[in-house]
Amino acid sequence: MPKQVDHEERRQAIASALWRIVGANGMEAVSLRHVAAEAGVSMGMVQHYFSSKDEMLLFALESLSARVAARLANGVPAGSPIRTMLLQMLPLDDERRAEAHVVVAFIARAAVEPAIAEAMRRVAGPFQEYIAAEISRAGVPGAWEHAAALLAVLDGLTVHIMVGLQTPEAAVAALDAHLGRLLGEEPAPPGSSA
Amino acid sequence: MPKQVDHEERRQAIASALWRIVGANGMEAVSLRHVAAEAGVSMGMVQHYFSSKDEMLLFALESLSARVAARLANGVPAGSPIRTMLLQMLPLDDERRAEAHVVVAFIARAAVEPAIAEAMRRVAGPFQEYIAAEISRAGVPGAWEHAAALLAVLDGLTVHIMVGLQTPEAAVAALDAHLGRLLGEEPAPPGSSA
Repeated sequence: MPKQVDHEERRQAIASALWRIVGANGMEAVSLRHVAAEAGVSMGMVQHYFSSKDEMLLFALESLSARVAARLANGVPAGSPIRTMLLQMLPLDDERRAEAHVVVAFIARAAVEPAIAEAMRRVAGPFQEYIAAEISRAGVPGAWEHAAALLAVLDGLTVHIMVGLQTPEAAVAALDAHLGRLLGEEPAPPGSSA
Repeated sequence: MPKQVDHEERRQAIASALWRIVGANGMEAVSLRHVAAEAGVSMGMVQHYFSSKDEMLLFALESLSARVAARLANGVPAGSPIRTMLLQMLPLDDERRAEAHVVVAFIARAAVEPAIAEAMRRVAGPFQEYIAAEISRAGVPGAWEHAAALLAVLDGLTVHIMVGLQTPEAAVAALDAHLGRLLGEEPAPPGSSA
């Protein structure tokens, strides 16, 4: 059935190949040629679906965002503590480490490429609104600023884990210290203080 | 005086050229050829000082770190509130935006290149120790974890400013909300809450 090609599936296969390359070798390693080889298709095939490298990157970012949203929807029961949701966004297992590689690479590209930055803003906005609503529900004033700080903590810890500045365990402890202080709960045990 | 070359000065000139390229076009644009052209020297000259691209990057990172440390030493009087020091590390003016471009590019490279990650750890370690000592002096328990979270806030906000997720003003408000909660001061004014 040569005509019965599932185009969406093929686009996804190409996006997956792209993620594997970025995760293993960084954004610098991405080229139409390399992605085609990794996906096992021709360069012409890649170009049929994505007319430029940036178009490929934008599609990958949006697929990644959908994957994270699905994981949050399925893996975090409604009414869970905010911590449960936030832990889903740190690179604490292989799947999320691979995703974080992609995110870090996108961050670097977004800093010099307005179209990529615009896509990241579109993806991140709803997270800040969601977190601000949760903080507001906890009765903490200044929820919008705290949500911005919390997203910064998450992205900063993600970077720190990826660069090895923090172990995953130390990053979780840092997040807990921040959340405890933010939500007015007990701080980290004194034995772990500096 | 053709033999009286200041080698350190020439290395610095090449490193400055590298920073300008990364700041304007990202790490992907860096090549021996491009750096030589930007610095106005031959490729052979660049190779005389730096045998590989990574060697050039490591030198630039260490010079950058020295520049930030000097700014902290000169621009932040001893005994200043921790906020004054932290604000020096956010990309709130052109000079620090250029530095942040370099840092973001290094982060992406460090995530896939162990030698770069090792250099970043060497540079970041003392900052966490310094911040932990300040938090400890303020009598807040769990200083080490809070310092990790605070460094994550700084790096996360830096990324968010660079990508345009937050304006510089919103980033400072987020940092203030975090610091107020951490140090037990008044939270942000209610008018700015979500």
